Amino acid sequence: MTLDEKFNALEVENAPGQEARKEPEDLNAIMRGEKLEGIPVDFSHGDVDAFPPTPGSAEAWRVGFESGAAQAYTEYRGAAEIRKGLADRLAAFTGRPISADNELIITPGTQGALFLAIGATVATGTKVAVVEPDYFANRKLVKFFGGEIVPIPLRYLGTSSENGPDLNRIETVFKSGTKVFVFSTPNNPTGLVYSADAITKIAALAASHDVTLIVDQLYSRMLYSGEVYTHLRSCEIQPKNLITIMGPSKTESLSGFRLGVAFGTPQLIDRMERLQAIVSLRAAGYNQAALNTWFSEPLGWLESRVHQHEAIRNKMLEIFRAANLLTATPQAGSYLFLQLPPLCVSLKTFVRLLRYQAGVTVTPGPEFAPAFTDSIRLNFSQDFASAVAAAQRIVKMIEIYRI
Amino acid sequence: MTLDEKFNALEVENAPGQEARKEPEDLNAIMRGEKLEGIPVDFSHGDVDAFPPTPGSAEAWRVGFESGAAQAYTEYRGAAEIRKGLADRLAAFTGRPISADNELIITPGTQGALFLAIGATVATGTKVAVVEPDYFANRKLVKFFGGEIVPIPLRYLGTSSENGPDLNRIETVFKSGTKVFVFSTPNNPTGLVYSADAITKIAALAASHDVTLIVDQLYSRMLYSGEVYTHLRSCEIQPKNLITIMGPSKTESLSGFRLGVAFGTPQLIDRMERLQAIVSLRAAGYNQAALNTWFSEPLGWLESRVHQHEAIRNKMLEIFRAANLLTATPQAGSYLFLQLPPLCVSLKTFVRLLRYQAGVTVTPGPEFAPAFTDSIRLNFSQDFASAVAAAQRIVKMIEIYRI
Repeated sequence: MTLDEKFNALEVENAPGQEARKEPEDLNAIMRGEKLEGIPVDFSHGDVDAFPPTPGSAEAWRVGFESGAAQAYTEYRGAAEIRKGLADRLAAFTGRPISADNELIITPGTQGALFLAIGATVATGTKVAVVEPDYFANRKLVKFFGGEIVPIPLRYLGTSSENGPDLNRIETVFKSGTKVFVFSTPNNPTGLVYSADAITKIAALAASHDVTLIVDQLYSRMLYSGEVYTHLRSCEIQPKNLITIMGPSKTESLSGFRLGVAFGTPQLIDRMERLQAIVSLRAAGYNQAALNTWFSEPLGWLESRVHQHEAIRNKMLEIFRAANLLTATPQAGSYLFLQLPPLCVSLKTFVRLLRYQAGVTVTPGPEFAPAFTDSIRLNFSQDFASAVAAAQRIVKMIEIYRI
Repeated sequence: MTLDEKFNALEVENAPGQEARKEPEDLNAIMRGEKLEGIPVDFSHGDVDAFPPTPGSAEAWRVGFESGAAQAYTEYRGAAEIRKGLADRLAAFTGRPISADNELIITPGTQGALFLAIGATVATGTKVAVVEPDYFANRKLVKFFGGEIVPIPLRYLGTSSENGPDLNRIETVFKSGTKVFVFSTPNNPTGLVYSADAITKIAALAASHDVTLIVDQLYSRMLYSGEVYTHLRSCEIQPKNLITIMGPSKTESLSGFRLGVAFGTPQLIDRMERLQAIVSLRAAGYNQAALNTWFSEPLGWLESRVHQHEAIRNKMLEIFRAANLLTATPQAGSYLFLQLPPLCVSLKTFVRLLRYQAGVTVTPGPEFAPAFTDSIRLNFSQDFASAVAAAQRIVKMIEIYRI
């Protein structure tokens, strides 16, 4: 693979936050009717103005800054004192003890944790099982490190008993040389939470076939009423190599701090730290101090935040289902994956029109796996009224452009 | 190369900031005499308590935080407004215009910039010229991406007309398939500044042999009395592919913010951004705002900081030279590379003894190239009195352990 090929595979044009760089192009020849008025909404990522950072996070940063050298130059895996507190709180959350010394690394965002985890486990030719659809960076990272993608289908539009990853396929590929399995639960982009049964089976299969598991649990705190979350770390049978990834960028809106954590198998955490040392040394020192607020938020804060998101979710589902559009009910997180009916323009053009004509930015389905040319992802962590109005504009746009 | 081999090459035990993780071991059997009293000094990196962050940097962070979503989710290459101001100021400093849109990326520290630059230019088998001695991550990064290291000797203990990189060797290797040349000026660890003649020749050779240049100018603002700095970007003949790297972590003590910049060839900046998108998305958003203080410090601030470092440098040179120890005069930056006489213990043991017996942490020479088993690096950006006392302890330790 030449460097050109390698970097073409890392195309970022449709990635969240990058839309600003696109050249304005004339869509007037394609556009039907007038522009739809309304406050522009960027569903490609959450709005931290609508849902501001955790109370006390800026103050925690300042304490870090004031503490000076010790907080500026932490170990590459993060400040020991901060890891200590985190290890206890994350162990309580995920159901298994974590050694702050050997089993935890603080990273520059959850993205940083994923990069290090995949860099630490994937080399040229490594077979890596990747769920379709799943977070777009998973595929890109595997390709970047020379791995071979082994797709695992995820069913998400059926009944709750039908939904989930294809466990037979997982068993088959685990038996035939797959070395690493990376997946997110709650799933990005669908909001599907892997069932206790699926998680238990994946853990057992990984243990018996010696497959390394990388489990991205970024959204596991934003769990809606009546849903149950199963931490893979809490299963009785544990695989030899397991990395769990989390971070405070989403539910807690600390994305501007670029903080994440990975915890699990000491040998892998050690490799990840070695890689971190040449990638960016450490998560920004003063920022690490904001992790002291994580899983230590004021009483009721988390419940209130989840409740507010559930209200938006419910309203979005109501709007889209009233228009007979297909979407799974997000069980957790703030992503909604909407299936579109056949349109008279390509998905790419429709996504551009949504932005140009309706002031709505979304992420196109093929970012999550090539086949999803009929779907778009919305991050509904937005101002309620703006999100509702924007969802209604999406429905109107679909009416205008459907065949 | 297996993953084990790959990660063994990334050994971080001797890396600055990692010493805290070493197991305490019993050196008493080897130690001669008593412990040397004094305030412990960690020369492996600068002390940001002795030289605090730029005035206004914490306030700039707060402004970034308060500005909310726009600053939390910047483009992967960094916030456009911040890049705009930076491009102008860096162009004035380095002697050539910079397009804020296409020629500049904000990175998580200078380390982040180096990682992206080498990741964007080095693939399996790429021949990369690396200076010996030079910053340790250069070698590790080239190996990590599968490149082949082509060593370039640097002379630094001769007269100023003798000193510098071996230009004949550079020409030879450029003619025989070297594709990338990465080097730091001021050189880390020696403090040598590449002469105008050397820089001009390197630029011309790179242009005629189509070699990509990655120039790490991290310390170029900390220039001592009477010294002249030549920016490769200011040469008349420019190579087709050139990336210049800088950052506010050293002279400005903003290391706790993890900020750096790379600027140069648009195609390479574009690749670096694609890589950043899967590595850590962006330099922490709110932190980026601290770059507004960079090259905009209060009048006289830089001169005073350089002056204070020059005083420490002079005193260190006086102490080491009075003891007949060999070291080059750092022309810029706060590194001093000290050659040791033959000792009755290995360098590794001596470095451990320095820490255990004398409370002095230094970086061993082999980090900068395998041959430098007789040298140690000191970052003298420390409290003046503590640094002086620690240098005197180093001299005593050499007396104790010399053959």
